[in-house]
Amino acid sequence: MGLDSFTPQKRFSTGGGGGALPINNHDATAAGRNRGVPRGRQLHKTFNNIKITILCGFVTILVLRGTIGVGNLGSSEADAVNQNLIEETNRILAEIRADSDPNDPDESTETGLNPNVTYTLGPKISDWDQQRKVWLSGNPEFPNFVNGKPRILLVTGSPPKPCDNPIGDHYLLKAIKNKIDYCRLHGIEIVYNMAHLDKELAGYWAKLPLIRRLMLSHPEIEWIWWMDSDAFFTDMVFEIPLSKYDQHNLVIHGYPDLLFEQKSWIALNTGSFLFRNCQWSLDLLDAWAPMGPKGPVRDEAGKVLTANLKGRPAFEADDQSALIYLLLSQKGRWMDKVFVENQYYLHGYWAGLVDRYEEMMEKYHPGLGDERWPFVTHFVGCKPCGSYGDYSVDRCLRSMQRAFNFADNQVLKLYGFSHRGLLGPNIKRIRDETTTPLEIVDQLDIRRSVTGKTKSKS
Amino acid sequence: MGLDSFTPQKRFSTGGGGGALPINNHDATAAGRNRGVPRGRQLHKTFNNIKITILCGFVTILVLRGTIGVGNLGSSEADAVNQNLIEETNRILAEIRADSDPNDPDESTETGLNPNVTYTLGPKISDWDQQRKVWLSGNPEFPNFVNGKPRILLVTGSPPKPCDNPIGDHYLLKAIKNKIDYCRLHGIEIVYNMAHLDKELAGYWAKLPLIRRLMLSHPEIEWIWWMDSDAFFTDMVFEIPLSKYDQHNLVIHGYPDLLFEQKSWIALNTGSFLFRNCQWSLDLLDAWAPMGPKGPVRDEAGKVLTANLKGRPAFEADDQSALIYLLLSQKGRWMDKVFVENQYYLHGYWAGLVDRYEEMMEKYHPGLGDERWPFVTHFVGCKPCGSYGDYSVDRCLRSMQRAFNFADNQVLKLYGFSHRGLLGPNIKRIRDETTTPLEIVDQLDIRRSVTGKTKSKS
Repeated sequence: MGLDSFTPQKRFSTGGGGGALPINNHDATAAGRNRGVPRGRQLHKTFNNIKITILCGFVTILVLRGTIGVGNLGSSEADAVNQNLIEETNRILAEIRADSDPNDPDESTETGLNPNVTYTLGPKISDWDQQRKVWLSGNPEFPNFVNGKPRILLVTGSPPKPCDNPIGDHYLLKAIKNKIDYCRLHGIEIVYNMAHLDKELAGYWAKLPLIRRLMLSHPEIEWIWWMDSDAFFTDMVFEIPLSKYDQHNLVIHGYPDLLFEQKSWIALNTGSFLFRNCQWSLDLLDAWAPMGPKGPVRDEAGKVLTANLKGRPAFEADDQSALIYLLLSQKGRWMDKVFVENQYYLHGYWAGLVDRYEEMMEKYHPGLGDERWPFVTHFVGCKPCGSYGDYSVDRCLRSMQRAFNFADNQVLKLYGFSHRGLLGPNIKRIRDETTTPLEIVDQLDIRRSVTGKTKSKS
Repeated sequence: MGLDSFTPQKRFSTGGGGGALPINNHDATAAGRNRGVPRGRQLHKTFNNIKITILCGFVTILVLRGTIGVGNLGSSEADAVNQNLIEETNRILAEIRADSDPNDPDESTETGLNPNVTYTLGPKISDWDQQRKVWLSGNPEFPNFVNGKPRILLVTGSPPKPCDNPIGDHYLLKAIKNKIDYCRLHGIEIVYNMAHLDKELAGYWAKLPLIRRLMLSHPEIEWIWWMDSDAFFTDMVFEIPLSKYDQHNLVIHGYPDLLFEQKSWIALNTGSFLFRNCQWSLDLLDAWAPMGPKGPVRDEAGKVLTANLKGRPAFEADDQSALIYLLLSQKGRWMDKVFVENQYYLHGYWAGLVDRYEEMMEKYHPGLGDERWPFVTHFVGCKPCGSYGDYSVDRCLRSMQRAFNFADNQVLKLYGFSHRGLLGPNIKRIRDETTTPLEIVDQLDIRRSVTGKTKSKS
């Protein structure tokens, strides 16, 4: 079927202020009805937040009673302490959750009130390759290649407020620890963003202004790698074969037949992808952004996407569908520089992977990166930070814990430990201490096992 | 007053399995009564955990009702979904909190049952300097100096289970994001530990086996920098003047007069300190560890420390008091290689700092690292992850948020943003976008402003 060009009915300028950050990339079902926060629900949500806060206070009472116990304080003193604790926690949680000041003059015009202003990510830059080239030659202490490898910046993040679901922050913590481990082993820098850079491009769209901003601020970075907060590295040895993409500027997981034949809304996955730091990427971001501004623009764009992409439910425009649509409708302009990768799991959909970890450990080994030992396990649809996901909380949390342990085992091995099982937190010793620990380092340090050039963190 | 040598009544071997990790370094008051978990409380604690789990289920109901709202599901369907959600969350939380299997044959003998076995951190290594030297010369791709700077590994961590206080995980997340930012700007690697390496040395003692393990596994690392999870970097420009310590092997914040004249239990702070990767450090760790094994040894050691250190309340031995005691009682053996630093805030006690951030922003600038612009703000006694701290939850959370924003402003500046205030999550644009972004990079990139050699992440 032919694809119509997308012409937004209304256009908006960039505002100041913030926009929400994506937690994960996508829901795969009709969860669209809950995407974003309809303005009519604001009060309802605030009221629910108050209820949450009060209950957290009750939880805190019980925890406090359990810790202080009988005999340490008199009961009336304990009651007074408990009461204070509830009040304090409630007060601070309410402040943390408070929205920005609606009277703030710096806040941009409300979406929909100024249809004559066009939204852009920023002023048009047309000579970025040249600017960057000049800068790099003038700044040899900030090279874009180190030991023959291009510098990569891994970008991820989560909202600045506590998760609606208390367990969510714990899994965000585990997810970033997982990324810290992988990046340390492979000499990759990390930016963990918790700021709303653009109010218009909120939610999953927030990665666009962030990627642009980081490209322009870090000319020494050759590749920007966006990764969702709900994606875990599960192959600690595998490295992206970047030389494969010397002629490309965007590397993204997907399936060409799903994309070109079926025009499926899940043909590509924007939960884990790499952009080269160059003019082409800035141009693609500019072309991608117009469906993003929240409100009528995003809603209308959603209808166009649902009408044109196979299997897409009805909901506002999301960044993934918009990119697919853009690459299909302007195929000649972009596709020669886009590498649709599926030889390894740059994005690995969790549901088909997490139950096979034991089998993998038995049959295979790290370094494969594919269905035998997935590079990345991505918990699409779980939304541990939010209060509504597409899968059961139980299944998601167990699965995330299993992915975490599966990866952690690969890191702990050098230190002589392993998790007892894939679900619990406890570890066991798998190797006795010795007086010659460097023999082990020579055998087991992952950085030494990477094929090709010997690795150096320097 | 003279100090007696410490001879443990009972000695224990290292076990397999795990030990709890320290969240922060110290309580400054009589909070010692809650340190560790007396065996008699185990049942009580389990029962309380069940209560917590049930209440978390109630919280989840309310959150779910708020999100699904009226009209999306029929009420009986909503009830069924809610019920399932409660059960699922309860089940998974209970499993996550479950203790290790008491029947596990790999678990070491219960403390106190084998008094004839001596505790050690591991087999005695006596030639680590030589082993390391040989390894480094044979592995030039893993140098211990990069661009003239010694390689540093920042080590921090938190327990593998969710925090008792739900807000705790959120602040652990913010604290690691803060550390990621500082370390990216200064070319420092991070290990975030969530494993119990040694069951005997649990709690704040867990840093000892961890530091040893990392030294022996990472010969390319010149300095291991332990930092508590409740410590935040608040000067993003300041760098530790490592050349000042060429003749030292331990750099720790403290006050010599408090140490030598007053023998105060807070003369030094083990929440942020650096160990050189060398034989001397292994020896000090070995000498430090004996007061640590939990149970009778730690309890008895606590009495010795309280008797000998000024101001120390009565509670089991903690690592900080034990180190102070060790350095005092074996002064001639160790002190020539210990640098007691107070020219900048390698550890900055939060209570005297957080209310002055606005004044600092008005009068001073990053890079000073001292009382004018503290290098590290350390939330001693707050315990956001636990359920009982020495200060009000309100005051602690507000203060931690202020420290986070104060630091984050220094990072966001390069990107053209700043927090609106020190408490809330929202940011504002402080600089318009331009078509020549690299002029800003030249002016503002922190890595370029570090005095001395130009910085390179490579």
